[in-house]
Amino acid sequence: MANITKKVSWSSRADESGATGEGTPLLNGSGQPRYCRQLSGGSIFQVGRLSTVDLEEEISAEEDSLRGRLKEIPHNEKLLSLKFESLDYDNIENQLFLEEERRMSYMGFRCLEISRWVVCGLIGFLTGLIACFIDIVVEELAGIKYRVVKENIEKFTEVGGLSISLILWVVLNSIFVMVGAIIVACFEPIAAGSGIPQIKCYLNGVKIPRVVRLKTLVVKVAGVICSVVGGLAVGKEGPMIHSGAVVAAGVSQGRSTSLKKDFKMFEYFRRDTEKRDFVSAGAAAGVSAAFGAPVGGVLFSLEEGASFWNQMLTWRIFFASMISTFTLNFFLSIYHKNAGDLSNPGLINFGRFESDKRNSISDSVPVFNILCAGGLLGALFNKLNYWLTIFRISYVHRPGLQVMEAMLVAAVTATVSFTMIYFSDDCQPLGPDHTEEYPLQLFCADGEYNSMATTFFNTPERSVRSLFHNQPGTYNPLTLGLFTVTYFFLACWTYGLTVSAGVFIPSLLIGAAWGRLFGILLASITIWTDSGKYALIGAAAQLGGIVRMTLSLTVIMVEATGNVTYGLPIMLVLMTAKIVGDYFVEGLYDIHIKLQSVPFLHWDAPATSHWLTAREVMSSPVTCLNRIEKVGTIVDILSNTSTNHNGFPVVIQGADGDEPSKLCGLILRSQLIVLLKHKVFVELARSRLTLRKLQLKDFRDAYPRFPPIQSIHVSQDERECMMDLTEFMNATPYTVPQSAGTQTPGGGGRTGDQEGLGQISPGQTRTGGASAGPDIVHTHTHTHTHTLFTNPIIQDYDGF
Amino acid sequence: MANITKKVSWSSRADESGATGEGTPLLNGSGQPRYCRQLSGGSIFQVGRLSTVDLEEEISAEEDSLRGRLKEIPHNEKLLSLKFESLDYDNIENQLFLEEERRMSYMGFRCLEISRWVVCGLIGFLTGLIACFIDIVVEELAGIKYRVVKENIEKFTEVGGLSISLILWVVLNSIFVMVGAIIVACFEPIAAGSGIPQIKCYLNGVKIPRVVRLKTLVVKVAGVICSVVGGLAVGKEGPMIHSGAVVAAGVSQGRSTSLKKDFKMFEYFRRDTEKRDFVSAGAAAGVSAAFGAPVGGVLFSLEEGASFWNQMLTWRIFFASMISTFTLNFFLSIYHKNAGDLSNPGLINFGRFESDKRNSISDSVPVFNILCAGGLLGALFNKLNYWLTIFRISYVHRPGLQVMEAMLVAAVTATVSFTMIYFSDDCQPLGPDHTEEYPLQLFCADGEYNSMATTFFNTPERSVRSLFHNQPGTYNPLTLGLFTVTYFFLACWTYGLTVSAGVFIPSLLIGAAWGRLFGILLASITIWTDSGKYALIGAAAQLGGIVRMTLSLTVIMVEATGNVTYGLPIMLVLMTAKIVGDYFVEGLYDIHIKLQSVPFLHWDAPATSHWLTAREVMSSPVTCLNRIEKVGTIVDILSNTSTNHNGFPVVIQGADGDEPSKLCGLILRSQLIVLLKHKVFVELARSRLTLRKLQLKDFRDAYPRFPPIQSIHVSQDERECMMDLTEFMNATPYTVPQSAGTQTPGGGGRTGDQEGLGQISPGQTRTGGASAGPDIVHTHTHTHTHTLFTNPIIQDYDGF
Repeated sequence: MANITKKVSWSSRADESGATGEGTPLLNGSGQPRYCRQLSGGSIFQVGRLSTVDLEEEISAEEDSLRGRLKEIPHNEKLLSLKFESLDYDNIENQLFLEEERRMSYMGFRCLEISRWVVCGLIGFLTGLIACFIDIVVEELAGIKYRVVKENIEKFTEVGGLSISLILWVVLNSIFVMVGAIIVACFEPIAAGSGIPQIKCYLNGVKIPRVVRLKTLVVKVAGVICSVVGGLAVGKEGPMIHSGAVVAAGVSQGRSTSLKKDFKMFEYFRRDTEKRDFVSAGAAAGVSAAFGAPVGGVLFSLEEGASFWNQMLTWRIFFASMISTFTLNFFLSIYHKNAGDLSNPGLINFGRFESDKRNSISDSVPVFNILCAGGLLGALFNKLNYWLTIFRISYVHRPGLQVMEAMLVAAVTATVSFTMIYFSDDCQPLGPDHTEEYPLQLFCADGEYNSMATTFFNTPERSVRSLFHNQPGTYNPLTLGLFTVTYFFLACWTYGLTVSAGVFIPSLLIGAAWGRLFGILLASITIWTDSGKYALIGAAAQLGGIVRMTLSLTVIMVEATGNVTYGLPIMLVLMTAKIVGDYFVEGLYDIHIKLQSVPFLHWDAPATSHWLTAREVMSSPVTCLNRIEKVGTIVDILSNTSTNHNGFPVVIQGADGDEPSKLCGLILRSQLIVLLKHKVFVELARSRLTLRKLQLKDFRDAYPRFPPIQSIHVSQDERECMMDLTEFMNATPYTVPQSAGTQTPGGGGRTGDQEGLGQISPGQTRTGGASAGPDIVHTHTHTHTHTLFTNPIIQDYDGF
Repeated sequence: MANITKKVSWSSRADESGATGEGTPLLNGSGQPRYCRQLSGGSIFQVGRLSTVDLEEEISAEEDSLRGRLKEIPHNEKLLSLKFESLDYDNIENQLFLEEERRMSYMGFRCLEISRWVVCGLIGFLTGLIACFIDIVVEELAGIKYRVVKENIEKFTEVGGLSISLILWVVLNSIFVMVGAIIVACFEPIAAGSGIPQIKCYLNGVKIPRVVRLKTLVVKVAGVICSVVGGLAVGKEGPMIHSGAVVAAGVSQGRSTSLKKDFKMFEYFRRDTEKRDFVSAGAAAGVSAAFGAPVGGVLFSLEEGASFWNQMLTWRIFFASMISTFTLNFFLSIYHKNAGDLSNPGLINFGRFESDKRNSISDSVPVFNILCAGGLLGALFNKLNYWLTIFRISYVHRPGLQVMEAMLVAAVTATVSFTMIYFSDDCQPLGPDHTEEYPLQLFCADGEYNSMATTFFNTPERSVRSLFHNQPGTYNPLTLGLFTVTYFFLACWTYGLTVSAGVFIPSLLIGAAWGRLFGILLASITIWTDSGKYALIGAAAQLGGIVRMTLSLTVIMVEATGNVTYGLPIMLVLMTAKIVGDYFVEGLYDIHIKLQSVPFLHWDAPATSHWLTAREVMSSPVTCLNRIEKVGTIVDILSNTSTNHNGFPVVIQGADGDEPSKLCGLILRSQLIVLLKHKVFVELARSRLTLRKLQLKDFRDAYPRFPPIQSIHVSQDERECMMDLTEFMNATPYTVPQSAGTQTPGGGGRTGDQEGLGQISPGQTRTGGASAGPDIVHTHTHTHTHTLFTNPIIQDYDGF
């Protein structure tokens, strides 16, 4: 891999201009000046790397940020985005594969199918367990922390000297956050953030390094516990999705490369095609465990990942989701000492929303105001976070600095919270059946508690629930207003820190606060009083404005509230938030994906790029191999950085020079590397007849960490040998005529070819491209059907 | 169309043997004896037509059934299943189309997108209105009927002479059913049944004649009202799905061909690609209105129809579903005089299921018994219905006989109900807050009512709700047992009658009855008493055993119960019911689809057919056209029944005979017909220079009812003219190498190619084939990449 992991900055400007139809962005190596200019011109996105995506190879961060500042975009487009490879979402239907299939009996396929179900069940179970573990540990540690601080505050409230309490609080928070930041920054930077952008990319078909490794999972789980207990404005829901995905990737392979343990199970699943399916099940199980929303989980996986719909796969995903939420529910009930209650389907529970007699539709006018606010505030949040991330990429890239920043945020969060509580004079009577876990009396009269403290001095999940369900009059408008403003900026500052943390709960909390505020204000002019409902709508609007999901988020919210009648208002709110927000800036995840320079394929190609043809986006001339090729040539092609494709068409040369060569197959870089490693040369096969034939197993064992070409030693003698690729190449790759357009076929298949233009570099030959959708050009070779060209038989479609 | 609508019988045996791996079923016209034998041998499926699928052309039913009995399968496989065409799910990317796209501005695409949303909103609204209309009319008419009969029974209970009441009941039922049967049998046979099989086929890519016409909708709505009021064991939910689909197909086209009214709107949507998307939205809206399950509706559409997943499309479908259920809810609330209550999200409401403190999982053992029962009883139901349908196809094919049968069933249903009620001595006390709408006292003491009557003397929806929610002890086991048995057979007899009717509610009712019975029996040996919950699980099991849906049905049931915690048991029940049921016989809809000889493509190709290659299933030699072709040749090819493909590859002949011809495009039969109709001949274009150029509009105006070739007059002179196809052919059709296998690519795309073997005749060239999935061979031509053949450049893939 190292040979193509050279870090470069690149501009994603190209696809933007494609979207707006300013010009046709071409990457086919024709190198016309206007494209070079376009690629290098005036982009604000040329940041080389985000701290969360790092590579094995070391490159000094200075160099990187320098390049970013100097806008030194490489003018050779061949070097664009060499950082990421794509997953091979196409079965390599070579002779070995077909033979294996042929040998398999009907029962064999049945067993495979059953083991898929078993794996999905396991994924659900383990994801549920992890969620349960996180929840319990957070609960216990946060409980200890809040009790200690509360006692301290109570002690010093009367005697004075609350600054000692503040210091205690700040120190406790900082310690937790420091631990969390250190493990993330030093051990596994990819575990930072919620992990949702990374999983989105993975499901989209981009191989993000180390995203589904065991180490990532461990760091993620420990990190999220630390950051939540550390009192940051974060949630533990987002990371569950990443955790589920890692569990899925691990379980489905039947081995752990990190632990050097091979259980000799599920060997059939050791390829990207199968692994992706399980990862989508894992992500769904994660959502399901986080929100108690199994259907929402399935829809999340489909919305984010799946390009096409397979009934059986979807059932398996649903099965994993169901198992996940029920595992969590079951163990949490035991933990809460009422086994069998099953009232904790997710990490966050919105509590029961009862249907009311009022007509939801009659509220449409006030609700509409919230919708816009959700979109606007979401866009503001995203924009601020975007600038902050740019700043972080430029200046906060050393682990030390990152840890410092995290600790600073923790300290500021604690201080601000304390100050807000301290200066708040919003005292509420403490009812006999109060739900507040840690009611702070502070300067309130006896039997009363500080209302501001219920929102700040609590885990965010509890605060959300309080805002949804506390009786009218629990909060006064000033408290809510102040809380909204401070928490908004704190959450915005927090997201993107080098800690494991999700943005779902902070978003919900902000939205719930201003939603409730809005409800209270509305109640003062109308008879409407159920501000809890407005809190829910506000939460949905804010979350929708930030993450811009609609269908899956609607279902998640509905499942979390447990009341189907809220479906229509929530859906309307989320759609409006998306429309309004998209007008200003992209969703938070998309921003971070873009900042990481991931060649992400969106659902639709830009509308006005429909007449762009394959010819215009492919790279030429094409790097081809012969069916029987010299080892030296192969090694040179693989080593050459200007031809660092991941797949190569295999051709048969015409009899004379004039006659065009004929496509006969496609072979991947990874396959060639395995072949070189095992020295499958024609000459050696002749001399060592006893040598066992290379089998599919050899490819599977090497999967997924194929060595780079540099690590394979090929002697000078061996360079003269020949390799016969016939048996290993995929003889029936997908092809398109070069005049094929980018029309969305079949009623809107996820074409996305054009989107890939400025994003997927020529270095990245996306074979398969399940992410790239059902109908698009999967591979990179096609047989020519046009007579106007002299030698156009094979074309390499690197744009995809 | 008439030229290929010749009715033939055919055997679906071929694909069965394909599935079991007995042999490779080939349809490529090689005509080897063994395949002929295979096709004609010992199938039980060679039934020519089902009464619900009729064609414009008249053929005497005797001839048809005779052929069925005599097993006269045509030995020329070219004639297999000529009855059905496929939808063209691929945009015809010809020059006209590309020019139009190019002319369209960014705003144009935006407007298109907005109008798609508008259309979806309209679809949802109208579907909701129709559901509302059906519900109110049924409610009113059934109310009148039951009140009249009840008064009559009460009058005659004391004086004796209940036989008069029986006769009254029978006559009332028969009249309603007669009306319903007459309109269906005489005016629109396709409106019979629930319409779900037809919609499944449509979404699968099969063009079923007249299935989405306005007339069908009118007959369907009137028919379902008659049959439900007529007291048959039917529901009004299934037909809603069909109704929604028709609404969608109508609204999206912006015109009504039946009413000869063109609103000049939505002209862009006049093609199969777009229409299919709207139809799937309509089906979802139908489900949503029927069960108050918007998410279930989306999943139904995806499970049954969509091959690939498009985010925007899914959101639109969801939008239509939401609008639909809320429209219904809103108008029904007004009708029920408590506007704003919004407690009627669907035609059937399961009522509120509260979570209980008991652990759902601890019930798994008794639940498991139900699971098997659901599968077994479902399989029994399907098998009986299958035999009955065979019998009906053979002997009950005249409209008169069909009406008679329907009336007979109505009379028998009334008689059986009456007898059961009459002989039942299960009297229950009539509580002060009784929920029974029409409590029959009959021979019970004062203040009591006949318990059997609550199940029989009621609309099925109410009976289901009673079984779910009535207090323990309301029913005695004998009542339930007898009811289950009689209703089972009545429902089985009823499904397939020539009336509009759904099978959902009867299935739920049967299942609820034996589920409750099981609950009661269990209560007598354990402490468990909530038999209503068992009724729910039983209903799910029975319905799952009959229709074999899982994911969408789980969500529909969960949404209908309004309680997310029932998700896991319902999912387990449905999955087990499917597994057990599939062991014996297919799902009811699949049986009926098979009996209608529809070339339906299933999700997966048979596992062991993976090494079958395209070469083996394509037909050869290929019927090609030249780029500039003689009109006479085209007319001959289109008229010839042995080459009645729907699409033809366009080739460029090699310079000399030896050189193979080159593929340059694909042209559809419908396009050629439009061209012939407009006489787009090279010679005429020269002589009549002022003639306007043919535009896409001309093709759209002709859509979807292209005239048959016979209706187009071409004079002898014109036959000598030439036609230039360059402008109209799709220059970039999908191609596959002939050695391509049927592997499921990309993690399980819906390949289904092999399934189509015995089902899709060579006469049916499935262009596009969105149903056939994203990755399969969409079209029928490919450029040769193999050198072993002498002249294999173009191959026609009719197997797909």
